[in-house]
Amino acid sequence: MTWNPNDTASNARPDLDRHLRKGVPEVVIAERKTVEQSLDIARRFLQATGRAILSRVPADLEERLRSEFEAEAELEWLPGPRAAVLRSPGHADENHGRGGNVGVITAGTSDIACAEEAALVCREMGCVVHTAYDVGVAGLHRLWEPLRHLLGEARVDVLIVAAGMDGALPSVISGLVDVPVVGLPTSVGYGLGGKGEAALLSMLQTCSPGMAVVNIDNGIGAGAMAGLIANRMAAARQGRIGTSG
Amino acid sequence: MTWNPNDTASNARPDLDRHLRKGVPEVVIAERKTVEQSLDIARRFLQATGRAILSRVPADLEERLRSEFEAEAELEWLPGPRAAVLRSPGHADENHGRGGNVGVITAGTSDIACAEEAALVCREMGCVVHTAYDVGVAGLHRLWEPLRHLLGEARVDVLIVAAGMDGALPSVISGLVDVPVVGLPTSVGYGLGGKGEAALLSMLQTCSPGMAVVNIDNGIGAGAMAGLIANRMAAARQGRIGTSG
Amino acid sequence: MTWNPNDTASNARPDLDRHLRKGVPEVVIAERKTVEQSLDIARRFLQATGRAILSRVPADLEERLRSEFEAEAELEWLPGPRAAVLRSPGHADENHGRGGNVGVITAGTSDIACAEEAALVCREMGCVVHTAYDVGVAGLHRLWEPLRHLLGEARVDVLIVAAGMDGALPSVISGLVDVPVVGLPTSVGYGLGGKGEAALLSMLQTCSPGMAVVNIDNGIGAGAMAGLIANRMAAARQGRIGTSG
Amino acid sequence: MTWNPNDTASNARPDLDRHLRKGVPEVVIAERKTVEQSLDIARRFLQATGRAILSRVPADLEERLRSEFEAEAELEWLPGPRAAVLRSPGHADENHGRGGNVGVITAGTSDIACAEEAALVCREMGCVVHTAYDVGVAGLHRLWEPLRHLLGEARVDVLIVAAGMDGALPSVISGLVDVPVVGLPTSVGYGLGGKGEAALLSMLQTCSPGMAVVNIDNGIGAGAMAGLIANRMAAARQGRIGTSG
Amino acid sequence: MTWNPNDTASNARPDLDRHLRKGVPEVVIAERKTVEQSLDIARRFLQATGRAILSRVPADLEERLRSEFEAEAELEWLPGPRAAVLRSPGHADENHGRGGNVGVITAGTSDIACAEEAALVCREMGCVVHTAYDVGVAGLHRLWEPLRHLLGEARVDVLIVAAGMDGALPSVISGLVDVPVVGLPTSVGYGLGGKGEAALLSMLQTCSPGMAVVNIDNGIGAGAMAGLIANRMAAARQGRIGTSG
Amino acid sequence: MTWNPNDTASNARPDLDRHLRKGVPEVVIAERKTVEQSLDIARRFLQATGRAILSRVPADLEERLRSEFEAEAELEWLPGPRAAVLRSPGHADENHGRGGNVGVITAGTSDIACAEEAALVCREMGCVVHTAYDVGVAGLHRLWEPLRHLLGEARVDVLIVAAGMDGALPSVISGLVDVPVVGLPTSVGYGLGGKGEAALLSMLQTCSPGMAVVNIDNGIGAGAMAGLIANRMAAARQGRIGTSG
Amino acid sequence: MTWNPNDTASNARPDLDRHLRKGVPEVVIAERKTVEQSLDIARRFLQATGRAILSRVPADLEERLRSEFEAEAELEWLPGPRAAVLRSPGHADENHGRGGNVGVITAGTSDIACAEEAALVCREMGCVVHTAYDVGVAGLHRLWEPLRHLLGEARVDVLIVAAGMDGALPSVISGLVDVPVVGLPTSVGYGLGGKGEAALLSMLQTCSPGMAVVNIDNGIGAGAMAGLIANRMAAARQGRIGTSG
Amino acid sequence: MTWNPNDTASNARPDLDRHLRKGVPEVVIAERKTVEQSLDIARRFLQATGRAILSRVPADLEERLRSEFEAEAELEWLPGPRAAVLRSPGHADENHGRGGNVGVITAGTSDIACAEEAALVCREMGCVVHTAYDVGVAGLHRLWEPLRHLLGEARVDVLIVAAGMDGALPSVISGLVDVPVVGLPTSVGYGLGGKGEAALLSMLQTCSPGMAVVNIDNGIGAGAMAGLIANRMAAARQGRIGTSG
Repeated sequence: MTWNPNDTASNARPDLDRHLRKGVPEVVIAERKTVEQSLDIARRFLQATGRAILSRVPADLEERLRSEFEAEAELEWLPGPRAAVLRSPGHADENHGRGGNVGVITAGTSDIACAEEAALVCREMGCVVHTAYDVGVAGLHRLWEPLRHLLGEARVDVLIVAAGMDGALPSVISGLVDVPVVGLPTSVGYGLGGKGEAALLSMLQTCSPGMAVVNIDNGIGAGAMAGLIANRMAAARQGRIGTSG
Repeated sequence: MTWNPNDTASNARPDLDRHLRKGVPEVVIAERKTVEQSLDIARRFLQATGRAILSRVPADLEERLRSEFEAEAELEWLPGPRAAVLRSPGHADENHGRGGNVGVITAGTSDIACAEEAALVCREMGCVVHTAYDVGVAGLHRLWEPLRHLLGEARVDVLIVAAGMDGALPSVISGLVDVPVVGLPTSVGYGLGGKGEAALLSMLQTCSPGMAVVNIDNGIGAGAMAGLIANRMAAARQGRIGTSG
Repeated sequence: MTWNPNDTASNARPDLDRHLRKGVPEVVIAERKTVEQSLDIARRFLQATGRAILSRVPADLEERLRSEFEAEAELEWLPGPRAAVLRSPGHADENHGRGGNVGVITAGTSDIACAEEAALVCREMGCVVHTAYDVGVAGLHRLWEPLRHLLGEARVDVLIVAAGMDGALPSVISGLVDVPVVGLPTSVGYGLGGKGEAALLSMLQTCSPGMAVVNIDNGIGAGAMAGLIANRMAAARQGRIGTSG
Repeated sequence: MTWNPNDTASNARPDLDRHLRKGVPEVVIAERKTVEQSLDIARRFLQATGRAILSRVPADLEERLRSEFEAEAELEWLPGPRAAVLRSPGHADENHGRGGNVGVITAGTSDIACAEEAALVCREMGCVVHTAYDVGVAGLHRLWEPLRHLLGEARVDVLIVAAGMDGALPSVISGLVDVPVVGLPTSVGYGLGGKGEAALLSMLQTCSPGMAVVNIDNGIGAGAMAGLIANRMAAARQGRIGTSG
Repeated sequence: MTWNPNDTASNARPDLDRHLRKGVPEVVIAERKTVEQSLDIARRFLQATGRAILSRVPADLEERLRSEFEAEAELEWLPGPRAAVLRSPGHADENHGRGGNVGVITAGTSDIACAEEAALVCREMGCVVHTAYDVGVAGLHRLWEPLRHLLGEARVDVLIVAAGMDGALPSVISGLVDVPVVGLPTSVGYGLGGKGEAALLSMLQTCSPGMAVVNIDNGIGAGAMAGLIANRMAAARQGRIGTSG
Repeated sequence: MTWNPNDTASNARPDLDRHLRKGVPEVVIAERKTVEQSLDIARRFLQATGRAILSRVPADLEERLRSEFEAEAELEWLPGPRAAVLRSPGHADENHGRGGNVGVITAGTSDIACAEEAALVCREMGCVVHTAYDVGVAGLHRLWEPLRHLLGEARVDVLIVAAGMDGALPSVISGLVDVPVVGLPTSVGYGLGGKGEAALLSMLQTCSPGMAVVNIDNGIGAGAMAGLIANRMAAARQGRIGTSG
Repeated sequence: MTWNPNDTASNARPDLDRHLRKGVPEVVIAERKTVEQSLDIARRFLQATGRAILSRVPADLEERLRSEFEAEAELEWLPGPRAAVLRSPGHADENHGRGGNVGVITAGTSDIACAEEAALVCREMGCVVHTAYDVGVAGLHRLWEPLRHLLGEARVDVLIVAAGMDGALPSVISGLVDVPVVGLPTSVGYGLGGKGEAALLSMLQTCSPGMAVVNIDNGIGAGAMAGLIANRMAAARQGRIGTSG
Repeated sequence: MTWNPNDTASNARPDLDRHLRKGVPEVVIAERKTVEQSLDIARRFLQATGRAILSRVPADLEERLRSEFEAEAELEWLPGPRAAVLRSPGHADENHGRGGNVGVITAGTSDIACAEEAALVCREMGCVVHTAYDVGVAGLHRLWEPLRHLLGEARVDVLIVAAGMDGALPSVISGLVDVPVVGLPTSVGYGLGGKGEAALLSMLQTCSPGMAVVNIDNGIGAGAMAGLIANRMAAARQGRIGTSG
């Protein structure tokens, strides 16, 4: 998009071709924008790429999305992360399900909304997502079965592990598995450190090498990182990236 | 000790009978005092109670303790926490081994000095201390055997679990056992939160109810709390505290 | 509960038998969940164990709890911590009052809601709870009488001391008594450190050994820790745990 | 002192007549200056006012102070706060002992150096200082006698209470006395909040009105505040400030 | 008030005679209590002392105070700090205006509510309060006149200086005057440190000795400290405290 | 290793087969251990696996490593991270150079030691490491060439980007490339946030999706994460992991 | 304005001639004041200077501004920063457009409101403001064109660069340009450091010399700093400040 | 400098032509580099530009700089900031003294080293620097004369104001002058906030618009910002930048 100093119609200059350049679609975080800004950006993405993804959509924007794009796009709505995917009728999502396998685990039920935001990004990147929610750390016996499933049958290439409170689950899992782990701390907890800081710090201090983290509640970032890893692996398996190495 | 506004000989007014009042002996934290202050306080305790316990003893104080009390007391030295116990020859430690059973676990080798400070306090309170060091969280398989031993044969009434870095081990253990756990964070870790803050916060955020914590590296506090719990249980078992309840 | 990757009915996988394994019942912290999630979990606990405990219940959930479980369960409501206990008619609480004696003290009136959450957990663990509220530190004369009662007639095995602001009361009490103290900081105070951080830090720095703490406003954690200590003591006194030690 | 942009001999421009303007002498905090800067400033004060006060004097400066001012001034040395007072032989300290009565209390022995810095400032302001060190909070019984002495016979107009760790003592005392209290937190403690932050926060959150605080280890500031209060009261009693009000 | 373990009517145990013991009346901070708790405590104070002081009164409590005490007490209302003073008709405030002189200064208009809370406490302690609001630091020329008035004609014994943002004003004033200064930081400012932390820290770091501080927005604490200082000075001037010193 | 409660010879229980289980070798962080502990653990790894890796080796340990293992192992020394690799003569490192391609970039020269620690871990995992140091952000023109080389000829599967100070480089790079980026903040900077906190926070806040971070100066963690990603990709390319996905 | 201790009509004492003294007009930050305070101050400025500038105007104040000043002033309204400029009909803004050239850049759309507050201040100081919004850092290609325009044709003397999240853009730009840069962090971001702290810290740590910063969201401060720089340059170019130097 | 992946001789890739691009010379902060790295970079700058500037030079590097460059360059040494400027004999500093006028003020003597680092950068940018040190805020009377000199005779275009502790001086000065102010906080102070955080925060919260800040002790950054402002003004005055605006 050419920059025009006299174009006062809209100030937003969305990165419309990030998906092509990076393989990661841009997700509009609507809670930080006015309703008009979000609608404008959504419209641009829809026109340019046939798809627009929005997350953390306030109630009034949700309503506008449903009414204003009714004619031109199909809307998929995720109530947990309050996310919306608009798709033009002609939009052929040719990559759908052709990407890598991603596993998404949460420690508790309160971490699910955040995990679903990550899963959404992965799916929009073409990944196949396998989930296991509420496996706890205060009762490790609940962990074995799902973990065996994800690493066995589901053959995930990377794990996203979401946890709030003590943030211990990602460390425990990272000590047990041989795939890279993306730690996703959530803003769940008590008093000191209870907005996710304790969980984030604990993950940053993990004794189990093979894990890196994103910021608190940043499901989008966790999904993008995991999606990039998984898709590159899928490409390698499918012979789409070269044989050296 | 009567307070005398004209007594300028020494400013220290140690709590000589805390052991009687509380069942917890006072431990002199020498790193916060001048050598002369520490020697003076040690001497008073030795005279009044037949025992003086010092921890975090700097090298110059260690030397003085060894030379100055040679005639009048026996010195026990713990290199890890740099702790010293001076005992008058006639000091009959009648409670020795009559207290409760305390288990002390560490996540790594770097946590051992701190754990030994806690164990020392418990032992001086008469407890029998059972230890299992370096059981990790980045490899949970190392945890089962020691835990089974402590809860089974050793029949501990309370567990002290020391951990730095992610501080995940106490939460994991607390989710598995039915005895109260005292979390002891240690000042071991990387960058942000690496002076024990991450470990402390993670323990304060534990998902596993049945744990309370002391401050970073506060082995003395952890030992005192665990010792009080274990000794009261021992007294109950031995019929030394009443039958109501 | 067997984990089923295809079970999309509900994501929550509550730890239904923690009470058996740990002796501590699970308390659902409703403010972190959607109303539907909380109702679903409550229903599962009610079916599996005959009891469901929820705390920090929002107004809309309270209404739903009252209406939806009217037929199948009796509801006990605590307005302070906004906690609810649902009990199946046939639920025989055989442990009621057979546990240990727990004392609960608060520094001010603003700490009472939090203290009542702790007391609730203790009572649901079978403990007998003795309370003394608003005993202050800015007027220590108000402290002697209640303390004498709790340690004398009431023979408590452990004290929970809740305080906000300067958090000084638990340290003062811990210096006077010979039972273990669980410090419970509350989110009451002025400006810097006034969301309970000052109280928590002060308790973590206590000069009086024999105290451990839980996080700010974590009445559930304080209750679980104290309940485990008191009940094990009661079991020892009643000869329900062995005679060694 | 007239400012001269071409005077490159020395950059320091000490506030030589603060004592006259404010009634509080300037104390040179030597640890923040080069040895030469400190010596230069000391010399200027000695010449202009007949007295120079330095605190936190490093070993090399101490030596220089002893050797270089031997001929022209008398040196008083306080080993605790490593403070030095240089006095010209002809310096008539006419206010000595004519000021108000100040009480200085410490919780532990580690707080004494800091308290002595405060006491020094008060004495140099002409106050009579009464001290009671190591009165503890983990054993309140040690507190009554000294407090009775300070408020009774010694008739102090203001109390400085120094404490590290939990910082609880000033709150406890402020709840008991009817004179203003200056809280002086010291950098003594464990891990989180252990450089005096916990003590400072706890004092800032005091439940006992009638206390204000200075920064951690700021004995000079505590002494100046208390000295101003006490001296104005002495002046009022001696009829040196008017009768209105 | 005798403590009664069976008195379940009310949990609050207000410190009814603090005014006698300390010379500082208790101010009920209503925002931390339920409406019923506040009303109950107000009633007790009114009955026991003829006066009840409440601050930070929510709208619903204000209404209740106005309606429920209409018959038995006169209500004085300060809209800034939302404070209320209830006085029994027969309440003879014999100390009114007999106390010391207190000066109250604010840097900006946003600091006035907080300053008025401090002034209220002083007045209820019998002090005469002189105010100068919005004297700024970003334009020091506005400062000279008010300061001259307060120290000259008004002869204040102590200054309360309230400031948010950079918190520079108290330091500037403390460098100019010879009376003790109580720094009162307010929760006004931008981004980092803007809830009063910058102002508090800056005051704690003051270069101008002769100042101590209270916590952010703690007008009550500032008023109590200043009132104690001023009243003792008034008593000294009026010969109500002895002649020694 | 079987746990033996009576084995008091050594407390360390190193995770000797982590390399087999996780594909990541254990690196002994020597600065957190005593010299004897480090030597003991090194010896065990050497015996069990033919290799021992130590990092942050203090001077005295370096000397001991050189002298004590002279006969039995070959020592490779990296002066930047002060890391040592001991290899038994017979140790056949069959994976050497068979792993994936990892790119390591630093913003400045001060970040190199940390980057080399990461590179060491990758190489010990069998990766081929390509580096580009000191490419700056305060002069982006220095960035293009190295980046083109790494993504082009070197075909890296993952990038580690180390930066201190503003931590901006990883975000800038992540916005330009289509491989996953591991952000490695280093403890380089000024005053506030200058121990790596600013760099870490900036990376956690990245606008460029496709990046996750490890803690400050945690080169080992960054290397392990990148190594796992790259090696799994290499395995996929080499057909060593299955064809599904 | 002469200070009058008996003037109780209004407490606000606005700095009416700051514009003359400093060249920077006072902006009333309405969110920190009551509606009545804001109206009163606005009226005073309007009368004294013919102009009043208010920012962060709450909805109820906006309404009052529109209705009450309808007759006497023209209102300009900026919806982004919710700012209002009231101008008396006869107000001749002779400096309009005679000041320097200021460039204002934002990283994202969420930073625009804050940038517009800065631009408003510059314009009211007579500057010509050139803007380029949403130029990103996660796609540097969007940056070149606007930057070329601002430094080329627009000949700006100073740049304000607003960014939230990672705050990387100002560092990147400062490394490329030869005009001073004012960094303006905004309160946009995720979890830890996400209220603008990460952006602020990152800017404070910039590797690119030639930048200074203001506090988070402080558009007014950024505008004033940039306006002073640009206007002095304009004056120099126009020969309005002397020829020395 | 062309990037060469095979050039392993040195990893440092200094930004040799920043001076040309930005007008700000690169200053090597030696404390963050090894002695060899610093020497290598110094040599490159000397060869490429005829000048090398290093700051915070450790004692061993100082010695090496003196001995190794003796033949080829002249060394200027500033003991305060421990800074060195190496100049090739043939180095013609044609800009010397042709830049703008910069004023540098410090609050205390402890701030001088930092201020001299800033002044050094300005001078190396060709500015004329005027200084006024130790003008205090705890005695504002010391401020008038120097300020009058700097703004009058010296005609400075910009002021750098360095202050530690309360950081109040820059706000006070910014409220009085009509030139832009660069606030330079220094790491001088007591306890909480005493490493310069209080000073930095206070400056970030300034009530006096027209000031921006750099990080704690970042004299280099302050000098670069002020130098850019002053030199552009000098260029404007000298007609070296155009007449528009």
